[in-house]
Amino acid sequence: MTVQCGYIQFRPELGETDKNMARIESLLHHADGAQLLVLPELSNSGYQFVSREEAEAFSEEIPGGPFSSFLIQWARGHRQYIVAGINERSDSRLFNTAILVGPDGMVGKYRKMHLFWDEVDLFDPGDIALTVFNLPFARLGMLICFDWMFPEVWRILALKGADIICHPSNLVLPFAQQAVPVHGLVNRVFIITANRTGTERGLKFSGCSFISDPLGRTLHTASREEDEVYFTGLDTDRARYKMITPRNHAFKDRRPDQYTLLVSDAVDKPS
Amino acid sequence: MTVQCGYIQFRPELGETDKNMARIESLLHHADGAQLLVLPELSNSGYQFVSREEAEAFSEEIPGGPFSSFLIQWARGHRQYIVAGINERSDSRLFNTAILVGPDGMVGKYRKMHLFWDEVDLFDPGDIALTVFNLPFARLGMLICFDWMFPEVWRILALKGADIICHPSNLVLPFAQQAVPVHGLVNRVFIITANRTGTERGLKFSGCSFISDPLGRTLHTASREEDEVYFTGLDTDRARYKMITPRNHAFKDRRPDQYTLLVSDAVDKPS
Repeated sequence: MTVQCGYIQFRPELGETDKNMARIESLLHHADGAQLLVLPELSNSGYQFVSREEAEAFSEEIPGGPFSSFLIQWARGHRQYIVAGINERSDSRLFNTAILVGPDGMVGKYRKMHLFWDEVDLFDPGDIALTVFNLPFARLGMLICFDWMFPEVWRILALKGADIICHPSNLVLPFAQQAVPVHGLVNRVFIITANRTGTERGLKFSGCSFISDPLGRTLHTASREEDEVYFTGLDTDRARYKMITPRNHAFKDRRPDQYTLLVSDAVDKPS
Repeated sequence: MTVQCGYIQFRPELGETDKNMARIESLLHHADGAQLLVLPELSNSGYQFVSREEAEAFSEEIPGGPFSSFLIQWARGHRQYIVAGINERSDSRLFNTAILVGPDGMVGKYRKMHLFWDEVDLFDPGDIALTVFNLPFARLGMLICFDWMFPEVWRILALKGADIICHPSNLVLPFAQQAVPVHGLVNRVFIITANRTGTERGLKFSGCSFISDPLGRTLHTASREEDEVYFTGLDTDRARYKMITPRNHAFKDRRPDQYTLLVSDAVDKPS
Protein backbone atom coordinates (compact mmCIF):
# COMPACT_ATOMS: atom_id res chain seq x y z
CA MET A 1 0.00 0.00 0.00
CA THR A 2 1.36 3.44 -0.89
CA VAL A 3 1.29 5.85 2.04
CA GLN A 4 2.06 9.55 1.96
CA CYS A 5 4.82 10.00 4.55
CA GLY A 6 7.27 12.73 5.37
CA TYR A 7 8.78 15.09 7.85
CA ILE A 8 8.74 18.64 9.11
CA GLN A 9 12.23 20.08 9.53
CA PHE A 10 12.35 23.31 11.50
CA ARG A 11 14.20 25.30 14.14
CA PRO A 12 12.72 24.96 17.64
CA GLU A 13 13.73 27.73 20.03
CA LEU A 14 15.07 26.81 23.45
CA GLY A 15 12.37 27.05 26.10
CA GLU A 16 9.89 28.75 23.75
CA THR A 17 7.21 26.08 24.00
CA ASP A 18 4.31 28.27 22.85
CA LYS A 19 6.26 29.73 19.96
CA ASN A 20 7.45 26.29 18.86
CA MET A 21 3.93 24.93 18.94
CA ALA A 22 2.68 27.85 16.86
CA ARG A 23 5.48 27.33 14.36
CA ILE A 24 4.67 23.63 14.08
CA GLU A 25 1.01 24.45 13.53
CA SER A 26 1.84 26.85 10.73
CA LEU A 27 4.07 24.25 9.06
CA LEU A 28 1.43 21.52 9.43
CA HIS A 29 -0.83 23.64 7.26
CA HIS A 30 1.61 22.92 4.42
CA ALA A 31 1.24 19.16 4.84
CA ASP A 32 -2.22 18.60 3.40
CA GLY A 33 -2.36 15.11 1.93
CA ALA A 34 0.29 13.61 4.19
CA GLN A 35 -0.87 10.59 6.16
CA LEU A 36 2.19 10.37 8.41
CA LEU A 37 4.50 13.20 9.48
CA VAL A 38 7.60 13.07 11.64
CA LEU A 39 8.87 16.05 13.65
CA PRO A 40 12.32 16.47 15.23
CA GLU A 41 13.44 15.39 18.70
CA LEU A 42 12.31 17.68 21.56
CA SER A 43 10.37 19.81 19.11
CA ASN A 44 8.32 21.45 21.84
CA SER A 45 11.15 22.54 24.09
CA GLY A 46 14.45 22.82 22.27
CA TYR A 47 17.51 20.81 23.22
CA GLN A 48 20.52 22.41 24.82
CA PHE A 49 19.49 22.68 28.46
CA VAL A 50 22.19 23.31 31.05
CA SER A 51 20.47 21.56 33.94
CA ARG A 52 17.75 19.10 34.73
CA GLU A 53 15.80 21.90 36.40
CA GLU A 54 15.86 23.92 33.22
CA ALA A 55 14.85 20.93 31.09
CA GLU A 56 12.05 20.11 33.50
CA ALA A 57 10.67 23.63 33.31
CA PHE A 58 9.78 23.01 29.67
CA SER A 59 8.54 19.45 30.00
CA GLU A 60 4.99 18.18 30.08
CA GLU A 61 3.00 15.09 30.93
CA ILE A 62 1.82 12.75 28.16
CA PRO A 63 -1.04 12.85 27.56
CA GLY A 64 -2.40 16.00 29.14
CA GLY A 65 0.33 18.51 28.42
CA PRO A 66 -0.20 21.37 25.97
CA PHE A 67 1.93 20.02 23.14
CA SER A 68 0.57 16.50 23.16
CA SER A 69 -2.95 17.91 23.46
CA PHE A 70 -2.34 20.14 20.48
CA LEU A 71 -0.95 17.22 18.43
CA ILE A 72 -3.87 14.97 19.33
CA GLN A 73 -6.34 17.67 18.37
CA TRP A 74 -4.59 18.34 15.08
CA ALA A 75 -4.35 14.62 14.25
CA ARG A 76 -8.05 14.10 14.96
CA GLY A 77 -9.08 17.10 12.93
CA HIS A 78 -6.87 16.39 9.94
CA ARG A 79 -6.97 12.56 10.01
CA GLN A 80 -3.19 12.40 10.08
CA TYR A 81 -0.65 10.44 12.10
CA ILE A 82 2.15 12.46 13.67
CA VAL A 83 5.34 11.38 15.43
CA ALA A 84 6.97 14.17 17.44
CA GLY A 85 9.86 14.46 19.82
CA ILE A 86 8.71 15.84 23.17
CA ASN A 87 10.22 16.66 26.54
CA GLU A 88 8.20 14.38 28.85
CA ARG A 89 7.73 14.62 32.61
CA SER A 90 6.41 11.57 34.42
CA ASP A 91 6.20 12.05 38.20
CA SER A 92 9.77 12.95 39.16
CA ARG A 93 11.28 11.53 36.00
CA LEU A 94 12.12 13.25 32.73
CA PHE A 95 12.28 11.47 29.36
CA ASN A 96 13.36 12.36 25.87
CA THR A 97 10.27 10.92 24.25
CA ALA A 98 8.59 10.44 20.89
CA ILE A 99 4.82 10.48 20.85
CA LEU A 100 2.62 8.93 18.16
CA VAL A 101 -0.83 10.42 17.68
CA GLY A 102 -3.53 9.75 15.08
CA PRO A 103 -7.15 10.30 14.09
CA ASP A 104 -8.28 8.35 17.15
CA GLY A 105 -6.04 10.18 19.58
CA MET A 106 -2.88 9.04 21.23
CA VAL A 107 -1.44 5.77 19.90
CA GLY A 108 1.76 5.32 21.87
CA LYS A 109 5.13 6.63 22.85
CA TYR A 110 8.80 5.68 22.92
CA ARG A 111 11.42 6.94 25.39
CA LYS A 112 14.98 7.36 24.09
CA MET A 113 17.04 4.39 25.22
CA HIS A 114 20.54 5.63 24.42
CA LEU A 115 21.15 9.12 25.81
CA PHE A 116 23.73 11.35 24.13
CA TRP A 117 26.47 13.24 25.94
CA ASP A 118 25.07 15.56 28.66
CA GLU A 119 21.54 14.29 28.15
CA VAL A 120 22.45 11.81 30.87
CA ASP A 121 22.30 14.74 33.32
CA LEU A 122 18.90 15.80 32.06
CA PHE A 123 16.87 12.74 31.22
CA ASP A 124 16.20 9.27 32.51
CA PRO A 125 17.06 6.43 30.12
CA GLY A 126 14.07 5.01 28.25
CA ASP A 127 12.22 2.28 30.09
CA ILE A 128 9.61 1.26 27.51
CA ALA A 129 10.28 -1.85 25.41
CA LEU A 130 10.72 -1.24 21.70
CA THR A 131 7.24 -1.41 20.21
CA VAL A 132 5.76 -1.57 16.74
CA PHE A 133 2.35 0.06 16.26
CA ASN A 134 -0.09 -1.38 13.77
CA LEU A 135 -1.65 1.57 11.93
CA PRO A 136 -4.30 1.05 9.25
CA PHE A 137 -1.76 1.62 6.51
CA ALA A 138 1.61 0.61 8.02
CA ARG A 139 3.43 -0.85 10.98
CA LEU A 140 5.41 1.87 12.64
CA GLY A 141 8.37 1.93 15.01
CA MET A 142 10.16 4.86 16.66
CA LEU A 143 13.75 5.64 17.61
CA ILE A 144 15.28 8.93 18.68
CA CYS A 145 18.47 10.53 17.36
CA PHE A 146 21.55 8.84 18.95
CA ASP A 147 19.73 5.51 19.09
CA TRP A 148 20.90 5.27 15.47
CA MET A 149 24.39 4.14 16.62
CA PHE A 150 22.95 0.89 17.98
CA PRO A 151 22.13 -1.60 15.20
CA GLU A 152 20.31 -3.72 17.76
CA VAL A 153 17.31 -1.40 18.03
CA TRP A 154 16.73 -1.09 14.28
CA ARG A 155 16.88 -4.86 14.01
CA ILE A 156 14.43 -5.39 16.86
CA LEU A 157 11.85 -3.01 15.42
CA ALA A 158 12.19 -4.70 12.03
CA LEU A 159 11.86 -8.16 13.59
CA LYS A 160 8.72 -6.91 15.32
CA GLY A 161 7.30 -6.09 11.92
CA ALA A 162 8.01 -2.38 11.36
CA ASP A 163 7.56 -1.14 7.79
CA ILE A 164 8.57 2.41 8.63
CA ILE A 165 10.86 3.55 11.42
CA CYS A 166 10.32 7.17 12.44
CA HIS A 167 13.43 8.84 13.80
CA PRO A 168 12.99 12.29 15.38
CA SER A 169 16.46 13.77 15.74
CA ASN A 170 18.57 16.71 16.83
CA LEU A 171 21.67 15.67 14.91
CA VAL A 172 24.88 17.64 15.05
CA LEU A 173 27.29 15.43 13.08
CA PRO A 174 26.86 14.07 9.53
CA PHE A 175 27.36 10.37 10.35
CA ALA A 176 23.69 9.45 10.67
CA GLN A 177 22.98 10.49 7.09
CA GLN A 178 25.51 7.87 6.00
CA ALA A 179 24.61 5.15 8.47
CA VAL A 180 20.84 5.24 8.92
CA PRO A 181 19.99 4.18 5.33
CA VAL A 182 22.20 1.12 5.86
CA HIS A 183 20.13 0.13 8.90
CA GLY A 184 17.19 0.37 6.49
CA LEU A 185 18.99 -1.76 3.91
CA VAL A 186 19.91 -4.66 6.16
CA ASN A 187 16.44 -4.65 7.73
CA ARG A 188 14.51 -3.85 4.56
CA VAL A 189 12.50 -0.98 6.07
CA PHE A 190 11.75 2.64 5.27
CA ILE A 191 13.23 5.25 7.61
CA ILE A 192 12.17 8.85 8.13
CA THR A 193 14.80 10.90 9.95
CA ALA A 194 13.36 14.31 10.90
CA ASN A 195 16.20 16.53 11.98
CA ARG A 196 16.20 20.13 13.19
CA THR A 197 18.15 23.19 12.10
CA GLY A 198 19.49 26.22 13.91
CA THR A 199 21.93 26.84 16.76
CA GLU A 200 21.39 26.72 20.53
CA ARG A 201 24.04 28.01 22.91
CA GLY A 202 26.76 27.38 20.32
CA LEU A 203 25.51 23.94 19.28
CA LYS A 204 24.68 23.87 15.58
CA PHE A 205 22.23 21.27 14.30
CA SER A 206 22.80 19.76 10.91
CA GLY A 207 19.41 19.65 9.14
CA CYS A 208 19.44 17.38 6.08
CA SER A 209 16.41 15.37 7.23
CA PHE A 210 15.92 12.43 4.92
CA ILE A 211 13.84 9.43 3.91
CA SER A 212 15.49 6.15 2.94
CA ASP A 213 14.04 3.00 1.41
CA PRO A 214 14.43 -0.76 2.00
CA LEU A 215 17.37 -0.88 -0.41
CA GLY A 216 19.27 1.77 1.55
CA ARG A 217 18.67 4.49 -1.01
CA THR A 218 18.12 8.02 0.24
CA LEU A 219 14.94 9.15 -1.50
CA HIS A 220 15.07 12.78 -0.44
CA THR A 221 17.28 14.99 1.70
CA ALA A 222 16.28 18.37 3.08
CA SER A 223 18.55 21.40 3.10
CA ARG A 224 21.01 22.04 5.89
CA GLU A 225 19.43 25.22 7.21
CA GLU A 226 15.91 25.82 5.93
CA ASP A 227 12.56 24.81 7.33
CA GLU A 228 11.03 22.16 5.14
CA VAL A 229 7.80 20.21 4.90
CA TYR A 230 8.20 17.20 2.65
CA PHE A 231 6.26 14.03 2.02
CA THR A 232 6.16 11.35 -0.63
CA GLY A 233 4.49 8.02 -1.34
CA LEU A 234 6.11 4.99 0.32
CA ASP A 235 4.98 1.52 -0.76
CA THR A 236 4.85 -0.47 2.46
CA ASP A 237 4.72 -3.77 0.51
CA ARG A 238 8.39 -3.16 -0.30
CA ALA A 239 9.19 -3.27 3.43
CA ARG A 240 7.33 -6.55 3.86
CA TYR A 241 9.27 -8.31 1.14
CA LYS A 242 12.25 -9.65 3.07
CA MET A 243 13.73 -11.90 0.40
CA ILE A 244 17.24 -10.82 -0.51
CA THR A 245 17.54 -13.50 -3.16
CA PRO A 246 14.96 -16.17 -4.06
CA ARG A 247 16.66 -18.30 -1.40
CA ASN A 248 17.69 -15.75 1.23
CA HIS A 249 15.40 -14.11 3.78
CA ALA A 250 16.73 -11.16 5.76
CA PHE A 251 15.37 -12.56 9.02
CA LYS A 252 14.97 -16.32 8.56
CA ASP A 253 18.63 -16.61 7.58
CA ARG A 254 19.68 -15.20 10.94
CA ARG A 255 21.50 -17.52 13.36
CA PRO A 256 20.11 -16.47 16.76
CA ASP A 257 21.81 -19.42 18.46
CA GLN A 258 25.14 -17.84 17.47
CA TYR A 259 24.19 -14.34 18.67
CA THR A 260 23.94 -14.89 22.43
CA LEU A 261 26.75 -12.46 23.27
CA LEU A 262 24.46 -9.62 22.14
CA VAL A 263 22.34 -9.98 25.26
CA SER A 264 25.15 -10.60 27.69
CA ASP A 265 26.55 -7.94 29.98
CA ALA A 266 29.89 -9.72 29.96
CA VAL A 267 32.05 -9.11 26.95
CA ASP A 268 34.51 -11.90 26.13
CA LYS A 269 38.21 -11.30 25.92
CA PRO A 270 39.85 -12.13 22.60
CA SER A 271 41.42 -15.58 22.45
CA MET B 1 50.19 0.48 16.89
CA THR B 2 50.36 1.03 13.14
CA VAL B 3 50.11 -2.18 11.17
CA GLN B 4 50.57 -2.62 7.42
CA CYS B 5 47.36 -4.27 6.24
CA GLY B 6 45.74 -4.83 2.90
CA TYR B 7 44.25 -7.17 0.36
CA ILE B 8 44.92 -9.06 -2.82
CA GLN B 9 42.14 -8.68 -5.36
CA PHE B 10 42.31 -11.12 -8.24
CA ARG B 11 40.37 -13.43 -10.54
CA PRO B 12 40.32 -17.05 -9.41
CA GLU B 13 39.41 -19.53 -12.14
CA LEU B 14 36.74 -22.12 -11.47
CA GLY B 15 38.26 -25.45 -10.53
CA GLU B 16 41.81 -24.36 -11.44
CA THR B 17 43.27 -24.89 -7.96
CA ASP B 18 46.90 -25.13 -9.07
CA LYS B 19 46.66 -22.13 -11.36
CA ASN B 20 44.93 -20.06 -8.65
CA MET B 21 47.61 -20.93 -6.12
CA ALA B 22 50.35 -19.97 -8.58
CA ARG B 23 48.58 -16.69 -9.31
CA ILE B 24 48.27 -15.94 -5.60
CA GLU B 25 51.95 -16.69 -5.10
CA SER B 26 52.96 -14.32 -7.87
CA LEU B 27 50.78 -11.57 -6.38
CA LEU B 28 52.14 -12.18 -2.87
CA HIS B 29 55.57 -11.28 -4.22
CA HIS B 30 54.20 -7.74 -4.65
CA ALA B 31 53.22 -7.48 -0.98
CA ASP B 32 56.61 -7.12 0.65
CA GLY B 33 56.20 -5.07 3.81
CA ALA B 34 52.61 -6.05 4.46
CA GLN B 35 51.97 -7.63 7.87
CA LEU B 36 48.42 -8.76 7.16
CA LEU B 37 46.87 -9.60 3.80
CA VAL B 38 43.32 -10.65 2.99
CA LEU B 39 42.41 -12.73 -0.07
CA PRO B 40 38.92 -13.23 -1.55
CA GLU B 41 36.39 -15.90 -0.66
CA LEU B 42 37.05 -19.36 -2.14
CA SER B 43 40.29 -18.09 -3.64
CA ASN B 44 41.64 -21.60 -4.22
CA SER B 45 38.66 -23.06 -6.06
CA GLY B 46 36.48 -20.41 -7.64
CA TYR B 47 32.83 -19.95 -6.76
CA GLN B 48 30.08 -20.85 -9.20
CA PHE B 49 29.81 -24.63 -8.79
CA VAL B 50 26.70 -26.34 -10.13
CA SER B 51 26.65 -29.21 -7.64
CA ARG B 52 28.01 -30.26 -4.32
CA GLU B 53 30.01 -32.98 -6.08
CA GLU B 54 31.71 -30.40 -8.26
CA ALA B 55 32.44 -28.14 -5.28
CA GLU B 56 33.81 -31.08 -3.33
CA ALA B 57 36.17 -32.02 -6.16
CA PHE B 58 38.07 -28.77 -5.55
CA SER B 59 37.92 -28.75 -1.76
CA GLU B 60 40.66 -29.63 0.69
CA GLU B 61 41.17 -30.42 4.35
CA ILE B 62 42.47 -27.73 6.71
CA PRO B 63 45.25 -28.05 7.59
CA GLY B 64 46.85 -30.55 5.27
CA GLY B 65 45.45 -29.58 1.89
CA PRO B 66 47.68 -28.03 -0.76
CA PHE B 67 46.38 -24.46 -0.51
CA SER B 68 46.50 -24.22 3.26
CA SER B 69 49.95 -25.86 3.21
CA PHE B 70 51.13 -23.31 0.67
CA LEU B 71 49.72 -20.42 2.73
CA ILE B 72 51.31 -21.70 5.95
CA GLN B 73 54.65 -22.10 4.21
CA TRP B 74 54.47 -18.63 2.71
CA ALA B 75 53.43 -17.05 6.02
CA ARG B 76 56.29 -18.75 7.86
CA GLY B 77 58.84 -17.75 5.27
CA HIS B 78 57.72 -14.15 4.91
CA ARG B 79 56.64 -13.50 8.50
CA GLN B 80 53.21 -12.36 7.32
CA TYR B 81 49.65 -13.08 8.40
CA ILE B 82 47.24 -14.08 5.66
CA VAL B 83 43.46 -14.53 5.68
CA ALA B 84 42.16 -16.44 2.68
CA GLY B 85 38.85 -17.87 1.58
CA ILE B 86 39.10 -21.59 1.00
CA ASN B 87 36.83 -24.43 -0.04
CA GLU B 88 37.08 -26.75 2.98
CA ARG B 89 36.24 -30.44 3.22
CA SER B 90 35.83 -31.92 6.69
CA ASP B 91 34.82 -35.59 6.62
CA SER B 92 31.60 -35.61 4.62
CA ARG B 93 30.96 -31.92 5.13
CA LEU B 94 31.90 -28.96 2.97
CA PHE B 95 32.40 -25.42 4.27
CA ASN B 96 32.96 -21.99 2.77
CA THR B 97 35.83 -21.15 5.09
CA ALA B 98 38.35 -18.43 5.85
CA ILE B 99 41.72 -19.57 7.14
CA LEU B 100 44.14 -17.42 9.16
CA VAL B 101 47.82 -18.32 8.97
CA GLY B 102 50.93 -16.58 10.31
CA PRO B 103 54.64 -16.89 11.01
CA ASP B 104 53.96 -19.69 13.48
CA GLY B 105 51.68 -21.63 11.18
CA MET B 106 47.93 -21.96 11.26
CA VAL B 107 46.14 -19.64 13.69
CA GLY B 108 42.47 -20.42 13.12
CA LYS B 109 39.54 -20.54 10.79
CA TYR B 110 36.00 -19.32 10.37
CA ARG B 111 33.20 -21.06 8.48
CA LYS B 112 30.66 -18.86 6.70
CA MET B 113 27.53 -18.67 8.81
CA HIS B 114 25.09 -17.11 6.37
CA LEU B 115 25.12 -18.90 3.02
CA PHE B 116 24.13 -17.01 -0.11
CA TRP B 117 21.64 -18.24 -2.68
CA ASP B 118 22.62 -21.66 -4.13
CA GLU B 119 25.53 -22.01 -1.73
CA VAL B 120 23.00 -23.79 0.47
CA ASP B 121 23.16 -26.69 -2.00
CA LEU B 122 26.95 -26.77 -1.89
CA PHE B 123 28.09 -25.99 1.63
CA ASP B 124 27.16 -26.71 5.21
CA PRO B 125 26.39 -23.65 7.33
CA GLY B 126 29.24 -22.52 9.56
CA ASP B 127 29.38 -24.27 12.91
CA ILE B 128 32.31 -22.46 14.59
CA ALA B 129 31.51 -19.67 17.07
CA LEU B 130 32.62 -16.19 16.04
CA THR B 131 36.17 -15.85 17.32
CA VAL B 132 38.68 -13.03 17.71
CA PHE B 133 42.36 -13.97 17.37
CA ASN B 134 44.94 -12.10 19.35
CA LEU B 135 47.87 -11.44 17.01
CA PRO B 136 51.02 -9.66 18.22
CA PHE B 137 49.91 -6.44 16.54
CA ALA B 138 46.10 -6.63 16.42
CA ARG B 139 42.99 -8.52 17.38
CA LEU B 140 41.48 -10.00 14.28
CA GLY B 141 38.04 -11.32 13.36
CA MET B 142 36.78 -12.89 10.14
CA LEU B 143 33.50 -12.85 8.22
CA ILE B 144 32.79 -14.03 4.69
CA CYS B 145 30.92 -12.14 1.97
CA PHE B 146 27.12 -12.36 2.57
CA ASP B 147 27.65 -12.37 6.34
CA TRP B 148 27.83 -8.59 5.83
CA MET B 149 24.01 -8.38 5.75
CA PHE B 150 23.80 -9.42 9.41
CA PRO B 151 24.74 -6.59 11.78
CA GLU B 152 24.80 -9.11 14.61
CA VAL B 153 28.05 -10.74 13.55
CA TRP B 154 30.00 -7.49 13.14
CA ARG B 155 28.81 -6.45 16.57
CA ILE B 156 29.79 -9.73 18.19
CA LEU B 157 33.32 -9.65 16.76
CA ALA B 158 33.71 -6.05 17.94
CA LEU B 159 32.38 -6.92 21.41
CA LYS B 160 34.93 -9.74 21.50
CA GLY B 161 37.65 -7.17 20.96
CA ALA B 162 38.34 -7.18 17.21
CA ASP B 163 40.39 -4.24 15.92
CA ILE B 164 40.28 -5.41 12.33
CA ILE B 165 37.62 -7.54 10.67
CA CYS B 166 38.84 -9.38 7.58
CA HIS B 167 36.12 -10.02 5.03
CA PRO B 168 37.00 -12.31 2.12
CA SER B 169 34.27 -11.90 -0.48
CA ASN B 170 32.92 -12.86 -3.87
CA LEU B 171 30.53 -9.92 -4.14
CA VAL B 172 28.26 -9.47 -7.11
CA LEU B 173 26.15 -6.46 -6.10
CA PRO B 174 27.36 -3.01 -4.97
CA PHE B 175 25.50 -2.87 -1.63
CA ALA B 176 28.35 -4.10 0.55
CA GLN B 177 30.56 -1.20 -0.46
CA GLN B 178 27.91 1.11 0.99
CA ALA B 179 27.02 -0.92 4.04
CA VAL B 180 30.20 -2.50 5.34
CA PRO B 181 31.91 0.78 6.33
CA VAL B 182 28.83 1.57 8.44
CA HIS B 183 29.28 -1.68 10.35
CA GLY B 184 32.80 -0.39 10.98
CA LEU B 185 31.49 2.99 12.10
CA VAL B 186 28.98 1.76 14.66
CA ASN B 187 31.49 -0.76 16.03
CA ARG B 188 34.58 1.43 15.70
CA VAL B 189 36.69 -1.15 13.87
CA PHE B 190 38.74 -1.37 10.69
CA ILE B 191 37.40 -3.61 7.92
CA ILE B 192 39.25 -5.13 5.00
CA THR B 193 36.91 -6.44 2.32
CA ALA B 194 38.87 -8.44 -0.26
CA ASN B 195 36.66 -9.04 -3.26
CA ARG B 196 37.34 -10.87 -6.51
CA THR B 197 36.94 -9.89 -10.14
CA GLY B 198 36.05 -11.79 -13.29
CA THR B 199 33.07 -13.80 -14.51
CA GLU B 200 32.16 -17.44 -13.90
CA ARG B 201 29.36 -19.12 -15.85
CA GLY B 202 27.72 -15.75 -16.45
CA LEU B 203 28.11 -14.48 -12.87
CA LYS B 204 30.14 -11.26 -12.81
CA PHE B 205 31.96 -10.32 -9.61
CA SER B 206 32.21 -6.67 -8.70
CA GLY B 207 35.80 -6.04 -7.54
CA CYS B 208 36.14 -2.73 -5.70
CA SER B 209 37.82 -4.31 -2.65
CA PHE B 210 38.18 -1.73 0.08
CA ILE B 211 39.45 -0.82 3.53
CA SER B 212 37.34 1.25 5.92
CA ASP B 213 38.19 2.87 9.23
CA PRO B 214 36.48 3.18 12.64
CA LEU B 215 34.72 6.35 11.49
CA GLY B 216 33.14 4.59 8.51
CA ARG B 217 35.41 6.23 5.97
CA THR B 218 36.54 4.19 2.99
CA LEU B 219 40.31 4.63 2.92
CA HIS B 220 40.94 2.95 -0.40
CA THR B 221 38.90 1.19 -3.08
CA ALA B 222 40.31 -1.10 -5.76
CA SER B 223 39.23 -1.01 -9.38
CA ARG B 224 36.27 -3.01 -10.61
CA GLU B 225 38.16 -5.34 -12.92
CA GLU B 226 41.90 -5.36 -12.32
CA ASP B 227 44.07 -7.49 -10.07
CA GLU B 228 45.39 -5.36 -7.22
CA VAL B 229 47.75 -5.74 -4.28
CA TYR B 230 47.25 -2.92 -1.81
CA PHE B 231 48.23 -2.32 1.78
CA THR B 232 48.43 0.68 4.08
CA GLY B 233 49.13 1.49 7.73
CA LEU B 234 46.20 1.04 10.11
CA ASP B 235 46.52 2.41 13.63
CA THR B 236 44.88 -0.23 15.82
CA ASP B 237 44.69 2.19 18.76
CA ARG B 238 41.92 3.94 16.83
CA ALA B 239 39.86 0.74 16.96
CA ARG B 240 40.35 0.43 20.71
CA TYR B 241 39.06 3.91 21.42
CA LYS B 242 35.34 3.28 21.78
CA MET B 243 34.28 6.67 23.11
CA ILE B 244 31.84 8.38 20.79
CA THR B 245 31.69 11.49 22.96
CA PRO B 246 33.48 12.06 26.26
CA ARG B 247 30.39 10.54 27.87
CA ASN B 248 29.33 7.90 25.37
CA HIS B 249 30.93 4.49 24.88
CA ALA B 250 29.96 2.45 21.81
CA PHE B 251 29.57 -0.72 23.87
CA LYS B 252 28.94 0.34 27.46
CA ASP B 253 25.96 2.43 26.34
CA ARG B 254 24.28 -0.66 24.94
CA ARG B 255 21.10 -1.90 26.65
CA PRO B 256 21.43 -5.69 26.45
CA ASP B 257 18.43 -6.17 28.73
CA GLN B 258 16.32 -4.55 26.00
CA TYR B 259 17.80 -6.64 23.18
CA THR B 260 16.50 -10.10 24.10
CA LEU B 261 14.48 -10.52 20.91
CA LEU B 262 17.76 -10.74 18.98
CA VAL B 263 18.42 -14.21 20.32
CA SER B 264 14.87 -15.49 20.11
CA ASP B 265 13.64 -17.70 17.31
CA ALA B 266 10.17 -16.32 17.78
CA VAL B 267 9.50 -12.96 16.21
CA ASP B 268 6.76 -10.90 17.84
CA LYS B 269 3.75 -9.71 15.96
CA PRO B 270 3.26 -5.94 15.87
CA SER B 271 0.84 -4.67 18.51
